[in-house]
This record gives sequence, C-alpha cells and structure tokens, in this order.
Amino acid sequence: MAAFPFTIGATDGKARTGVLATPRGGIRTPAFMPVGTAGTVKALTVEQVAATGADIILGNTYHLMLRPTAERVRRLGGLHRFMRWERPILTDSGGFQVMSLSKISKVTEEAVTFQSHLDGSRHRLSPERSMEIQADLLGSDIVMQLDELVALPATPERAAEAMRRSARWGARSRAAFGMRDAQALFGIQQGGTDEALRRESAERMLETGFDGYAIGGLAVGEGHQAMVEVLDFAPSMLPADRPRYLMGVGKPIDIVEAVARGVDMFDCVLPTRSGRHGQAWTWDGPINLKNARFAEDEAPLDPASDVPASRDYSKAYLHHLVKANEILGQVLLSWHNLAFFQALMAEMRGAISDGRMEAFRRSFAARQRSGSDTSE
Amino acid sequence: MAAFPFTIGATDGKARTGVLATPRGGIRTPAFMPVGTAGTVKALTVEQVAATGADIILGNTYHLMLRPTAERVRRLGGLHRFMRWERPILTDSGGFQVMSLSKISKVTEEAVTFQSHLDGSRHRLSPERSMEIQADLLGSDIVMQLDELVALPATPERAAEAMRRSARWGARSRAAFGMRDAQALFGIQQGGTDEALRRESAERMLETGFDGYAIGGLAVGEGHQAMVEVLDFAPSMLPADRPRYLMGVGKPIDIVEAVARGVDMFDCVLPTRSGRHGQAWTWDGPINLKNARFAEDEAPLDPASDVPASRDYSKAYLHHLVKANEILGQVLLSWHNLAFFQALMAEMRGAISDGRMEAFRRSFAARQRSGSDTSE
Repeated sequence: MAAFPFTIGATDGKARTGVLATPRGGIRTPAFMPVGTAGTVKALTVEQVAATGADIILGNTYHLMLRPTAERVRRLGGLHRFMRWERPILTDSGGFQVMSLSKISKVTEEAVTFQSHLDGSRHRLSPERSMEIQADLLGSDIVMQLDELVALPATPERAAEAMRRSARWGARSRAAFGMRDAQALFGIQQGGTDEALRRESAERMLETGFDGYAIGGLAVGEGHQAMVEVLDFAPSMLPADRPRYLMGVGKPIDIVEAVARGVDMFDCVLPTRSGRHGQAWTWDGPINLKNARFAEDEAPLDPASDVPASRDYSKAYLHHLVKANEILGQVLLSWHNLAFFQALMAEMRGAISDGRMEAFRRSFAARQRSGSDTSE
Repeated sequence: MAAFPFTIGATDGKARTGVLATPRGGIRTPAFMPVGTAGTVKALTVEQVAATGADIILGNTYHLMLRPTAERVRRLGGLHRFMRWERPILTDSGGFQVMSLSKISKVTEEAVTFQSHLDGSRHRLSPERSMEIQADLLGSDIVMQLDELVALPATPERAAEAMRRSARWGARSRAAFGMRDAQALFGIQQGGTDEALRRESAERMLETGFDGYAIGGLAVGEGHQAMVEVLDFAPSMLPADRPRYLMGVGKPIDIVEAVARGVDMFDCVLPTRSGRHGQAWTWDGPINLKNARFAEDEAPLDPASDVPASRDYSKAYLHHLVKANEILGQVLLSWHNLAFFQALMAEMRGAISDGRMEAFRRSFAARQRSGSDTSE
C-alpha cells in the first residue's frame, strides 16, 4: 500500500539504516534534508548541494505559494524543473510558516485564513488546498499533511485540541491526496511533550494510514532535554517499517540523539542560516569564523572532505570573507555546513552498520561539548 | 627589457590581438579583467571565474592594505595563495580608491595620507609604499604605478599639475620597483581630455619606461562621447609593442569602441555589480531580470554558452531569485555577466583575426542600442 518501498538495512539498538526508494532516486537514511525555502537552498547552486551528498531537499509550501505562486511553478514545469533539482523533494504543508510568519486571520475546522508577510494579501490553506499545492502544482515527491500547531507554552487542553484537529486534517489530507504510486504522503504526530497525547496521535495516524510518519511540534523552544525525553517514547509509537521524520531538527547533537532513538529523517535551516552568519559546524562543535584566532589559520575546515568549501579554503581566508561581509563567505560556509551535516549522517549510517552507534553517540556528544566555541 | 613578452597576433585597423606571456600563464588580448576587490571576485568562487575564460583578475590595493592588510596577506603566502587564484593578478596602486572612498588628510609631493573608510585609522601611501604592497607583500604579477587623480570637473591647470605629479610618481614607482623578471610594472597616462597634456604624459612615461601603458583618468564622469574622443588619439601615443590598458572601463559598448582604437586590456566592476542588482548583459543590451516580462520566460540567458549560469537557468527562475532577493540570484547573474564580458572579448579577438572588427563594432553597437531594456 505504501507509495515508496522502505528497506531497513542494519539496526543497532533503536537506530537503523535504510533506503527509501523513490522514482527520483533512493534516500539513504538516516537522512538530512537541506531546506530550499523559496526554490533555492540559500546561496548555493543545486550542483553544490548535490556535491555534499544530499539525496533529498525540502521546499516550503508557504513561501512558494506566495511567490512565485504554486500555479506559476506548475506552468513552469513543477518545482524540480523550476529549480533544477532532479532528486526527490519533500514539501512541508505550509502550516508552520503560516503560524510563524504570517498574520493569521482566522482558524476554523475548515481552513486557516492568513495574510502574506510579503504584501498583506489574503490566502486560505485547507488540507485539500495544501494537497493540491504540494502534490499537483509543485509536484513534490513527499507531501506532508496539514497540521495545526500551537504556540508554546500551551495548556494541556489546547495541546490536545490541536492534536485532534491535526488528526482530522490528516484524514482529510489523505482523502484529498488519495493513493499515488509516484508520490508519498506523510502524517504528522502532535501532542507536545505529553506521552498520552503522543500515543493518541499515533493511533489516530495509524487509523488513517500514511506512507511515512513525522514527529511534529518539537524543536519549538522546549529545549534539548525535553525534546530528548519525548524522543525516548515517541518514535516507537510509529510503525517500525516506515520512515520516521523529526521535523525542523536540528543541531548535530539533537540529530544524533534522535537517530539513536529510531528517527530516520531530518530537516533544518541551521546549516545554511548559521553559515550565512559566519558559523561553521565541525566535529568539535560550532566555531565562529569572525573570531580573531582564525585570522592567520591556514588550515581548512576539513582537509578530509571531498567538498571544496570544506577542503580547499583556509580558515584565514574564510575569516577575512566573513569580516568583510563578502557573499562568497556566506556561500562557502553554507556549503561547508551542509557538507558537514551530510558527513555526520554518513558517519552514523556507518556506525549503525558496524554496531557502534552508542559509542559514536557518546564520543560525538563529548567532542561537541568540549570544542564549542564560546569565546566570542 | 620588458618583463613579459607581448606578442601581437593579428591587427585590423587600430585593433589588435595579442598574448602577454607571464610566468602564471598567458593573457589573451583584448582582455577583460574581473575585479576581485577584497580578495574575492564578489559572490563567485575562483573556479566559477576561471570557467568564464578569464586569464587574469584585478585586486584592489586600497581594500587589501586596510583589510586583511598587505602584511597579513604576505604571511599567508601572498594574494594568489590567499584567494586560491593561480593565474595572473594585476593590482591597482590604491590611488583611485584613496580618492573615491577614504577621507584624504593630506596630499604632498611625498605621499598621500588618508583615513580608512572602515574604521578611520590613518594610513600613508607613497609610490614606494605602493610598490612594496603590490610587488612584495601581495605578490602581484602586474603592478600599477601610483598616480594622482583629480576630481572632475578640473581646471586645465589642476589637470596638468596632477599629470606631472603622476609622471614624477611614475618615475619613483619605477625606481622602487626596479627591474624584475617575474613581475611587470605599468605606467599610467593622465591629462584628462586634453590632447597636449595626454601627449606630454605619454612622453614622460616613455622616458621612465614601463612594461605596459595604462590610460587613466577616463570613465570618471566625462561621458561616452568625450571618452571616445580621447581614445581617438590617446592609445596611439603609447608604444605599439606593449599592452595598452584602459582603466576602469566599462560598458560593453565602451570596451568595443576602445578595442577598435587599439586598447588591449580592461577592468570594471560593472558585470559583478550590475549582476548583484538584477541586471544581465546580453548581445541585445542589458536587461533587468526584475521585469515582469521574464516571470514565465523559460529561455536561459544564453543557450550557446558553456557557463552554467548563462545556459542552464531559465529567466523565469532568475526573475524569481531576484524578486525574492536570494543570494543565488546575485551569484548567477554575476557569473553570467562575467561570462558575457569574456565572450565579448573572445568575439572581438575572432573578429580582429578575421579582419571584420569594424563590421563587428557597427553591428554590436546597433544591437546594444536597439535591445536596451528601458521598460523598467
């Protein structure tokens, strides 16, 4: 029944490797999806993104429906052709950005009405419209159900209400999407940090039936420890034979802890956003290239990398570019960070295959903590 | 005596092709030098710049002496190694940016003292210091003499005074630079739009003796027609057996008119600067990608180009990137524009070799005029 075959490779504790096979290519899991917000992974060409080893990228329905509009993307041949990315694309439902960026006019059981943050124009997003935009107009490979998010902190009653509406919207998303061979629909678990709500959410998702299962409503300010506690129970509520996707996560250490707890897919703006602000992620934690200690450091960020941004440029040169606010600095650090995130996923796939994921997790956490650059 | 052999290939009227041979590679003339202001051709990797066919780039002494400082570039192995550009580099003397960007404190016969536009710090530039920075610290292949520029409009007396000081500073630049096998020193002709002053300037340059001869003080607001009139007489005052370099020029049509009048080398920020502002140069003139008529135009900027930015991306996608203010739009349009300028130089080299430079000049001028995008 599921659209794309998901083949589990190795397992190690709760962690597992796998391949989600799509008509546009396989997605090796655990997988990190670079975010291509408005039809571009910010600052990078698709060739640069592909060179990091990314199997799939994420596109934002909210941004694309406002500009250039989903209808225009359709007339231009769909999102893959428009942005020249031939591998798989996952699109979010638009719900998260409607909450965080737009001016909400009204939320009813039927739909959410909002005003664009760009020009104040009025728009409407329902489960059915989200499916039309993602599946039919943008031509996404993996489509996300529309869900309702609550602003934190939320009362238990409000969290339960949003979870149940999300479950109903999930069923409507499935009905509108139907069953397709070449596109998959993922459901989204809600319920905040409450185990009983997460369980009810998972059960209602299973009743509807999805091709993959996302964990939503985390990484929204609850903190690392609270997130890890939810990840102690939430992934195992979701089917073991389908991919589990932790939305909007995150820092490398968050990703490692989630993989150790059975999560397969991730997305986050962190590598590109922090790259645009002069930060580079390394095995020893993040460093800020603005720091004067790099001014004459001739070493590259990662001499062992295959990616030019990581291997070929001295930290001294990157320091200069960041200090001088040069676009090339934003390009190279975004590129390096995406390469680092992909290298991290590859390392974890190797560690799981070799049965040493727990050792990897411990040593990675220790190195990230010890090396973190708090000097500036 | 001249540092680098300059071999004239074909001539056609006053126009000529040639190769300036340097230890870091040959420079095919007529040549356009992309400007790498602060150790980076803005927004582009050196691989992207090289892919356009550029044989040489220009570095700005003023910017580099302030940040990261010439001494630091020296400690990091020189400018080529610092920015990873292995082909030739020409550096300007710093004089132009001191005039246009800094707060001048004092100009004497000995040196100019100024305050940095970055932090107000005080600096001094003399012919000897400019030679030290360019030749010894940055490690430039082609070094420019320090000259004195005058703000326009200038009285004939002021123009003559600046020309004569430039001549004296040229002699001091030559004395400080000495004779080198692996680096060349170019003199700069001044004299504004006055033929007699230009002649006196050329004669004094010849007394000193340089490895190449630049035409300075044009493209500073005098207008296309006045510039072309100076180019009717100025290049032929300079030795025919050495490269002639028109500094800071320019628009494609300016470059074509100058090549037809015997100029061999050019530099300008125009392709990268206009690219960052959404403008693309084409055989039919400049177009602004923001224009709504490109919103659903699936054609690339130049399907015949070898450069991905010109060949692979639809105008519709570039329009979207520019409208959304995406960095990738700045990258791709900078890249395309540099590719167009290099293609223009290659076309002219072919036209001169084939004895059809005058026909090329006429048809190019007609197409640039007719196609210019004045609709927005």
